[in-house]
Amino acid sequence: MSAVISPTAAVLIIGDEILSGRTKDTNLNTLARFLTALGIDLKEARTVGDTPDQIIDAVRTLSANHDYLFTTGGIGPTHDDITADCVAEAMGVGLPENDEALAILERRYGDELNDARRRMARIPEGGSLIANPVTDAPGFQIGNVFVMAGVPKIMTAMLDDVAPRLRVGAITHARTLKVEGVGEGDVAELLTAAADANRTLSFGSYPFGHGTVGEYGTQLVVRGRDAATLSAAVEALKEAIEVTLADRGVRVFEVQPEA
Amino acid sequence: MSAVISPTAAVLIIGDEILSGRTKDTNLNTLARFLTALGIDLKEARTVGDTPDQIIDAVRTLSANHDYLFTTGGIGPTHDDITADCVAEAMGVGLPENDEALAILERRYGDELNDARRRMARIPEGGSLIANPVTDAPGFQIGNVFVMAGVPKIMTAMLDDVAPRLRVGAITHARTLKVEGVGEGDVAELLTAAADANRTLSFGSYPFGHGTVGEYGTQLVVRGRDAATLSAAVEALKEAIEVTLADRGVRVFEVQPEA
Repeated sequence: MSAVISPTAAVLIIGDEILSGRTKDTNLNTLARFLTALGIDLKEARTVGDTPDQIIDAVRTLSANHDYLFTTGGIGPTHDDITADCVAEAMGVGLPENDEALAILERRYGDELNDARRRMARIPEGGSLIANPVTDAPGFQIGNVFVMAGVPKIMTAMLDDVAPRLRVGAITHARTLKVEGVGEGDVAELLTAAADANRTLSFGSYPFGHGTVGEYGTQLVVRGRDAATLSAAVEALKEAIEVTLADRGVRVFEVQPEA
Repeated sequence: MSAVISPTAAVLIIGDEILSGRTKDTNLNTLARFLTALGIDLKEARTVGDTPDQIIDAVRTLSANHDYLFTTGGIGPTHDDITADCVAEAMGVGLPENDEALAILERRYGDELNDARRRMARIPEGGSLIANPVTDAPGFQIGNVFVMAGVPKIMTAMLDDVAPRLRVGAITHARTLKVEGVGEGDVAELLTAAADANRTLSFGSYPFGHGTVGEYGTQLVVRGRDAATLSAAVEALKEAIEVTLADRGVRVFEVQPEA
């Protein structure tokens, strides 16, 4: 969409508990916002179970197709924590005990560092650790793959140690117009014209209220890397809607993106 | 894991707004719970943007690899709503206007049925409609692919019309033990032994509280299709933890799965 080449990324969510519905994933949204703020394009995400073939295949495919791959889940001490094994296999390297990781675990657990916990010191050959300020047991980076915990609080904390390692891109700015009193279908034609006239921008449309009760309408989100182009397009779209749909009592105003 | 063959499923979440972080997806969890309750194994999920190649490729791969594919998003009236086009392309069929869908839209919109809204009457050849009791514009089923809205309230409502079409499997039962006072690493060995002894069951381990403040410990989730086998394994695991970790002041009790 733009002349600026931005890095691309994929996310891999690992865990039976997500696919059974027991746990509602929140890491994808955290990562999406993190990457968007850095100007990195998140292109796709996958969720797989604690199944070696699925994990290995996804790591290979996603790390080959994108500049960065971020995984969450499966790096704890129990038998179903197989992410490190699968990433090592996918990258074709060994999984030896890492001295630095072992030292961290020894400090954390002392006498309680049993065999199960010691598994968390195994890091793929050539990998570097990702600091875990919550429970110490580290994540790791190997090549363009960043392997993080599944517990949201830990995953989020690990991003502090991940961010400085990433090549950032041009930030994508987003502007949101709230269009009240008409439905998505009423603004669709104007939106198509705006999209056709502005090929470096993306235009999204998100209905709210469903037209059934009270306030209803459509939020239009326009995104692009050039702020001036974006601003001109948003103003033009706002005016076009106001003029064209004046007889429908439409109200158009800019709002801050939803938090 | 079991002698009973259960249907498998995949989910495809479609929409730039999920990958930019603007919108937090909730449909995957809704679908995961829906499928689990029907005894259908959700094996994987993917999230892609409003990008034809990505959607077509994912629909082809996931519908070929699983008994069912459920998609959400991209079936509205605007230019970025391209799911029907992509599903038709993936299935190698045309995308004509469907009389039944058109009649529904005519009833809903009357004079306001413009060209943009009329796009929603295009249904892949051979497809059948999925009723939308919220805003009327239907989803559709073609082959083993179920195409639904992205708005969570609408997606959820569409499941009422989807459920009767699915072959159900043996229900997977889940039992949860809450283990207080010790960490994941303390129960890991016992959990591995239990998993080795019960190959038809799955054992998951989910830490809580991180051992930093107040209450902490691990939730153990045991899942399986045979209730008697499951029950025996849960009781045995509970006793093994109580006996082995008695000197650590461990408390083990069964809790209801988290809602």
